[in-house]
Amino acid sequence: MTRRVYNFGPGPATLPLPVMERARDEFLDFQGLGASIIEISHRSKEFEALLDQTDALLRELMEIPQDYAILYAHGGGQMQFSMVPMNLMRYRPARKALYVETGEFSKRAIEEARRYGTVDVVASSRGTRFDRIPELDPARIDPAASYLHITTNNTICGTQWRDVPAAGDVPLVGDATSEILSRRIDVRRFGVLYAGAQKNLGPAGLAVVIVRRSLLGHELPETPKLLTYKVLADDHSLTNTTNTFSVYMSKLVLEWLKTQGGVPAIEVRNQRKAATLYAILDASSFYRGHAHTPDRSIMNVTFNLPTPELEARFLREAEAQGLYALKGHRALGGVRASLYNAMSEDGVAALADFMRTFEQRNG
Amino acid sequence: MTRRVYNFGPGPATLPLPVMERARDEFLDFQGLGASIIEISHRSKEFEALLDQTDALLRELMEIPQDYAILYAHGGGQMQFSMVPMNLMRYRPARKALYVETGEFSKRAIEEARRYGTVDVVASSRGTRFDRIPELDPARIDPAASYLHITTNNTICGTQWRDVPAAGDVPLVGDATSEILSRRIDVRRFGVLYAGAQKNLGPAGLAVVIVRRSLLGHELPETPKLLTYKVLADDHSLTNTTNTFSVYMSKLVLEWLKTQGGVPAIEVRNQRKAATLYAILDASSFYRGHAHTPDRSIMNVTFNLPTPELEARFLREAEAQGLYALKGHRALGGVRASLYNAMSEDGVAALADFMRTFEQRNG
Repeated sequence: MTRRVYNFGPGPATLPLPVMERARDEFLDFQGLGASIIEISHRSKEFEALLDQTDALLRELMEIPQDYAILYAHGGGQMQFSMVPMNLMRYRPARKALYVETGEFSKRAIEEARRYGTVDVVASSRGTRFDRIPELDPARIDPAASYLHITTNNTICGTQWRDVPAAGDVPLVGDATSEILSRRIDVRRFGVLYAGAQKNLGPAGLAVVIVRRSLLGHELPETPKLLTYKVLADDHSLTNTTNTFSVYMSKLVLEWLKTQGGVPAIEVRNQRKAATLYAILDASSFYRGHAHTPDRSIMNVTFNLPTPELEARFLREAEAQGLYALKGHRALGGVRASLYNAMSEDGVAALADFMRTFEQRNG
Repeated sequence: MTRRVYNFGPGPATLPLPVMERARDEFLDFQGLGASIIEISHRSKEFEALLDQTDALLRELMEIPQDYAILYAHGGGQMQFSMVPMNLMRYRPARKALYVETGEFSKRAIEEARRYGTVDVVASSRGTRFDRIPELDPARIDPAASYLHITTNNTICGTQWRDVPAAGDVPLVGDATSEILSRRIDVRRFGVLYAGAQKNLGPAGLAVVIVRRSLLGHELPETPKLLTYKVLADDHSLTNTTNTFSVYMSKLVLEWLKTQGGVPAIEVRNQRKAATLYAILDASSFYRGHAHTPDRSIMNVTFNLPTPELEARFLREAEAQGLYALKGHRALGGVRASLYNAMSEDGVAALADFMRTFEQRNG
């Protein structure tokens, strides 16, 4: 009997058990070919069909309009920190981009963008340890800017944009790595919406990039070929050998999500999962939530305990009970429970029980 | 009973059966963690240990000296077509690079390098449809050049450098994607030796880059962070989430290679496999080998039949007998048998039998 823990890791993250079992069962022989999905050509008709199906599932589940291209890019979400400015900085002649700073990953995106043009950080919650989504003054949104970049969910601190900001004619770029497919998102509000695969999709090394076609073709001349949106769009992301295994696993995850009722249904479940833990935080003076209440993430719940010693004991005892990878990021310490789509309500209930018992014994 | 064909595909390519079985067996539970290798953090102690072991195996099997760094880069071999010039073009003030053109992939490498400096194609076999490794006039090797780039094995046309060219003080850069670990290579002859994983290592999306440390730190200012050799070297390739599954599979493949006797032993076997097929080509007027005899590859054997109709029949009948993915690249048509490390001698014997029988029936 295979042992499976409740895995609350922030990413690479837990995947649905039926998906994992299917991938295992067909690992040596994909579709009766007598070879594995990882052993066949990215240009085989079997893989090209799989890629088409992945596109179709993404379009259906996220309601992606036809004037958006779906790209599969190497390197995960962070490669987009370079690809976004390389492909969009030149969209308007001022070569200026606007960024909202809401955590470590938006910081990295900002640093990277500075190589390619002028960056204006139009709002930041750095002063309060990224515990909230900062107010964004509409007057800061310079209409001459090439784009406005936000991180829609902040994995480390556990904050999330409730509503997407209005950006007028400035294309909005969203890093949705740690929340893609977890709640309804209106793709039309974005010029580019991207996500590393390794949280709500599949294995690491891949990013899904959803880009309005009218934004293609503005890349800087020094943009590497494999980092050029237009090239990937023209080549259906097969400019070179794509990360075939990650695409394959993502497709299985999307099929699973569809059987779960799609994004609206998983959103209800995700809201319920997060509410279960936030209710404990709200009722407790033992557990201290990090995120400002209105901006709390439904994907990553972050909190501290009264002392580092209690935090260490919490993590140790949790792990002994099969509650895995709850350690908070070193920036905050404490505990972080990542509740991606594949985390079951049973897993959250087990964590909630453990939290209540631990507080009773140590509070 | 799982069906497995003899898979002669050029990449993503066949992997050793014991490796595939082990990966399947532990796919849901890696090292008793209760989570898959694809579900755990790249910063977990388990993954970091795995990365260290992969380094150690590569160093041992390839005899990589300590003054070379081993990097795991996103994007496969072709991302190196950009990374090499971005990291090395500025190594010398002339910003000039030398390339030998031996096929489609060196062509692509040349096109990409032109974005970043002056490129001098110092030798080419384009005039003879890349059927050979061209003579390289030592006088063409400008000592002011930042590097000289060769493709050590050419997958499409089936040619291979028998001996590495002398480049004096000009760093030699080798794309060994389709031959890494298949024969002894003296790493010291190279400044940079790189290979996409998907032929002799593991799943696609990753490249192994072996780089002399003295060449680090010369990147162009516009080099994306994740494409900077020095950053990857400093971060042990964990600047962001690496392609953890491909690293894991590569490590299993390296362990398997060690049980086979390492590179010297697999080289003997690879020579024998190639010789079996070349003997048939040499004895036949029915099969016509593409590559010039002294430059024939031991990894990719390419040949044509008298007519396209016979080629189509050959491929159809071969596939029906479990000899998979033998179709030649569209540039040459015909047949290509890729004989990477994981292709067994039994597989080659089965193909040889089929070739002899097919010739008797149709010759």
